[in-house]
Amino acid sequence: MHAENRPVGVVGLGSMGSALAAALLDRGHPVTVWNRTADKAGPLLDRGARQAATVREAIEAGPLTIACVLDHRALRTVLDPVADALAGRSLVNLTSGSPEQAHEADAWARSLGAHYLDGAVMTTPPGVGNPEMMVLYSGARTVFEDHRPTLAALGDPLHLGDDPGLASLYDAALLGLMWSTMTGWLHGTALVGAEGTPATAYTPVAIRWLTAVTGFLTRYAAQVDAGRYPGDDATVDVQIAAVEHLLHAAGSRGVDNALPELLKATMERARDAGHGADSFAGVIEVLRKPAGDR
Amino acid sequence: MHAENRPVGVVGLGSMGSALAAALLDRGHPVTVWNRTADKAGPLLDRGARQAATVREAIEAGPLTIACVLDHRALRTVLDPVADALAGRSLVNLTSGSPEQAHEADAWARSLGAHYLDGAVMTTPPGVGNPEMMVLYSGARTVFEDHRPTLAALGDPLHLGDDPGLASLYDAALLGLMWSTMTGWLHGTALVGAEGTPATAYTPVAIRWLTAVTGFLTRYAAQVDAGRYPGDDATVDVQIAAVEHLLHAAGSRGVDNALPELLKATMERARDAGHGADSFAGVIEVLRKPAGDR
Repeated sequence: MHAENRPVGVVGLGSMGSALAAALLDRGHPVTVWNRTADKAGPLLDRGARQAATVREAIEAGPLTIACVLDHRALRTVLDPVADALAGRSLVNLTSGSPEQAHEADAWARSLGAHYLDGAVMTTPPGVGNPEMMVLYSGARTVFEDHRPTLAALGDPLHLGDDPGLASLYDAALLGLMWSTMTGWLHGTALVGAEGTPATAYTPVAIRWLTAVTGFLTRYAAQVDAGRYPGDDATVDVQIAAVEHLLHAAGSRGVDNALPELLKATMERARDAGHGADSFAGVIEVLRKPAGDR
Repeated sequence: MHAENRPVGVVGLGSMGSALAAALLDRGHPVTVWNRTADKAGPLLDRGARQAATVREAIEAGPLTIACVLDHRALRTVLDPVADALAGRSLVNLTSGSPEQAHEADAWARSLGAHYLDGAVMTTPPGVGNPEMMVLYSGARTVFEDHRPTLAALGDPLHLGDDPGLASLYDAALLGLMWSTMTGWLHGTALVGAEGTPATAYTPVAIRWLTAVTGFLTRYAAQVDAGRYPGDDATVDVQIAAVEHLLHAAGSRGVDNALPELLKATMERARDAGHGADSFAGVIEVLRKPAGDR
């Protein structure tokens, strides 16, 4: 049997779990599915999945079980009664949770003699299976390498490190980046929209601008690691001056300014902490500690 | 004379004005420069620029003057005494300002019989002249088209519309997007950094994730224009639940949570306004009016 065709058990058939199972079926894997309510399996059975009568049956269908349920509590509720079946097998947990929960799950799996990887799917269900989309994994690299060909069916698999908490940690960080970016984009969309510019006209320009911004991030990342933030081309002081244009333009058009006000206040905290002549990367110095501790 | 070689006057030799003059020289334009303090011109003279003894001389050097000074007040202080020289010529103003100031400058230029374009350089001085970088223009399209070959020396010229305020409006919106994205990125960098991940390890993943996020923006832009926000794959309610993981992970590691707290509060406002089952694009409905008016 080719490694690519390893049988997989999929536990949890919400929209994400169903998308994971479908992507595995698309790549030719034998897939055995289980869900708390059996009716969710219907569309997958039509595509060739086998329905397990019990969770044990799904686990015992192959060397690898992929779980995607509501939360870590649900994971344990489902797996604890059949934990002995996991011995010698691998569990890839794509359930959302905290780094601490990933550590707990890893310790629990080790106590059973099971291999554990924690993961985070960095796309929405329709994007699962697209090799451009990242799926993050953390835990023992040997386990990751063993199952990499199977995991590649779900998206581009990235191993972040042996610490099982890293996938959850990155997931949280990246979602925060997404909400920040999307809210900033919506604020700008509301601003130009107030003058009649459609979102579909503004957004291609915004996306192209984000590409330029990623160039700044690459430069600033090296500054963060070095702990020095030379502000040659654009200092925090210059940005504080520029944010006034945004506040005025948006405020006078009835656009809610809570976000740019917070961004300005954050830059001012950086300036007050001595980073006015630094690049924007210097702002990290005031994010690392809560306000009360400064 | 080829259109590409039109002589250009450059008024204002701060770091951005100097970069603009240098980019024009690199493309073979005769460039006449003027600055309030003459010593700024030195490096440009070495590269072939001519130094004007007066602003009038810079304006009269060709059909097009590019101005980049401190602010609109400085622009008028410099140009008002020699305003008659602008008659029949074009002024491209890359000085930062508000849409209202662009309208005023446009009206003032028209009163002189001059052509006016307002603009915004969407890069830092070292990026000027890179054809991948956008330079935004607004004002009469005929004037833009006339000077497009010259403006192409500065970066990729985009004409946003005949309304002269559009370049400033987009500039403000795009800078807001940049600060949002950079602050969200720094927050995540601080979070993963608390567990020992270097910024240079996290950032390539963050940049790749931003590419996926731009896919969401494209889909959501169409939803904003349609005024309907189907939340099939990821609803505001789901995001509100997920933001708790971020708040907990960052808070317990001493990372300042002001930004994600604001993002959560914004999502909750959207939910409370009836957009909980919508996609994130529905959040725009609570940004369009200030909190006091809802």
